[in-house]
Amino acid sequence: MPTEKKSKFIVFEGIDGSGKSTQVKLLASKLLKNNISHVLKKEPGDTIIGDKIRKLLSEDSDMSSLTELFLFSAARKELVDKEIIPALENETLVILDRYIYSTIAYQGYGRNIDLEYIHHLNKMATSDLKPDIVFLLDIHPEISSSRIDSKKLDRIESESIEFYSRVRNGYLEIAEANPNTWMIVDASKQPEQIHTQIWDRIY
Amino acid sequence: MPTEKKSKFIVFEGIDGSGKSTQVKLLASKLLKNNISHVLKKEPGDTIIGDKIRKLLSEDSDMSSLTELFLFSAARKELVDKEIIPALENETLVILDRYIYSTIAYQGYGRNIDLEYIHHLNKMATSDLKPDIVFLLDIHPEISSSRIDSKKLDRIESESIEFYSRVRNGYLEIAEANPNTWMIVDASKQPEQIHTQIWDRIY
Repeated sequence: MPTEKKSKFIVFEGIDGSGKSTQVKLLASKLLKNNISHVLKKEPGDTIIGDKIRKLLSEDSDMSSLTELFLFSAARKELVDKEIIPALENETLVILDRYIYSTIAYQGYGRNIDLEYIHHLNKMATSDLKPDIVFLLDIHPEISSSRIDSKKLDRIESESIEFYSRVRNGYLEIAEANPNTWMIVDASKQPEQIHTQIWDRIY
Repeated sequence: MPTEKKSKFIVFEGIDGSGKSTQVKLLASKLLKNNISHVLKKEPGDTIIGDKIRKLLSEDSDMSSLTELFLFSAARKELVDKEIIPALENETLVILDRYIYSTIAYQGYGRNIDLEYIHHLNKMATSDLKPDIVFLLDIHPEISSSRIDSKKLDRIESESIEFYSRVRNGYLEIAEANPNTWMIVDASKQPEQIHTQIWDRIY
C-alpha cells in the first residue's frame, strides 16, 4: 500500500483505441481501494461549458481545423480553471484523460496546424500548467483501429490509418523529448499488465 | 445612384446601444433598393456552428474571459471561411455587424485580456483579412445604456458604464490609429442623418 503521494497531476495520452480509458478506470479503481482521494476528468468537456463544446465538436463534421482548435482551447480553459487547479490546490490527485498533448498530436501532427499556434493556445488555456507524469499508451494504428467499435466512431475517430500514424509519431516525439515526465507504455500488452506498470510508476 | 462599388468589405463597430444594428439595416435596405447584391452578417454566429457558439456565449454567465475569447475566435473562423471569403471572391459586398475590433475593444480594453493574445487569435481566425471601411458608431455609454431595453440584456450587455467607457476608449484608439479605413460617426445624431453620412462614405 502506498504511503506517499509522489505525483499530483497525471495525464493519459494515446490514439483512439489505445486502451487509455480502460487504464484510467483501472487506476481510479485502485486509488479508491487504497482510499486515495482523486479527481478524474476527460478532455474535451467535463465542465458545464466544456460538455456543450464536446457535443458541438462531435456533431459538426464540416468544421475547419482551426475552429476545432479554438473550441478545444475553450473547453480546456474551463477545465483547468474550474476543476484541475482547484483540485491541485486542495492537494487532490488529478487524473486527466487527454490534455494539451492531444492537441499537439492530433491537430498539429495529424492535421498539420502550425505547432507555434498550438503551443501559444495551449499556454493561454492552461497558464502553462504541466502534469507530473504523462502515460503514453503507444500502439500501432492498425491494432488500435480494430479495437474501436465502428458504430461508436464519431467524427474524429473515423479517420484513416495514415492520420493515426502521424498522430502516433507526434506523441512519440514529445515523449522522447521529455523522458523525465513521460512514460511510453506498450499498449498491445494485457490491460492488467499495463496497469501494474502504471501503478509502479506512480507509487 | 451609385455607378461604382468602391469597397467590398464593410464593418460596423460600436458599443451596445450605439444604434449599430439600425444602421446596418438602413444600409442593407438602401442597397436592396439600388439592386446592389450584398451579404449581411453579424458576429458572433451566422453560421451553423457559430449560432451554437453564440447561444453558448449568451447563456453561460460563469465563463472566464479567455474561454469567451476562444469561443469568439471559433465562431469568427467559421464566418470568415464559410461566408465572408466566398462572398468577397464572388465580388459581393459584405456588411459585417462586429468583427475583430469588437474583440480588441471588449475583451482587450474592457476585460483587460493581453492585447498580444487577442491580435494573435484574430490573425489566426481571419488569416489577417481586413475590411475596406469600418464605421465606428461612437456614443457616450450613459446615452447608449438608456437605449437598451433592460429586459433584452444578455450577459455581455449587462455590464457597467465603467466597462463600456473602457470599450469606447479602445474603439477610439483603434479608429484614430487607422484614419484611412475607419470613420468615426457621432451616434447621438438622428438615424437618417447617420445613414446619409455612411452612404456618402461608401458611394
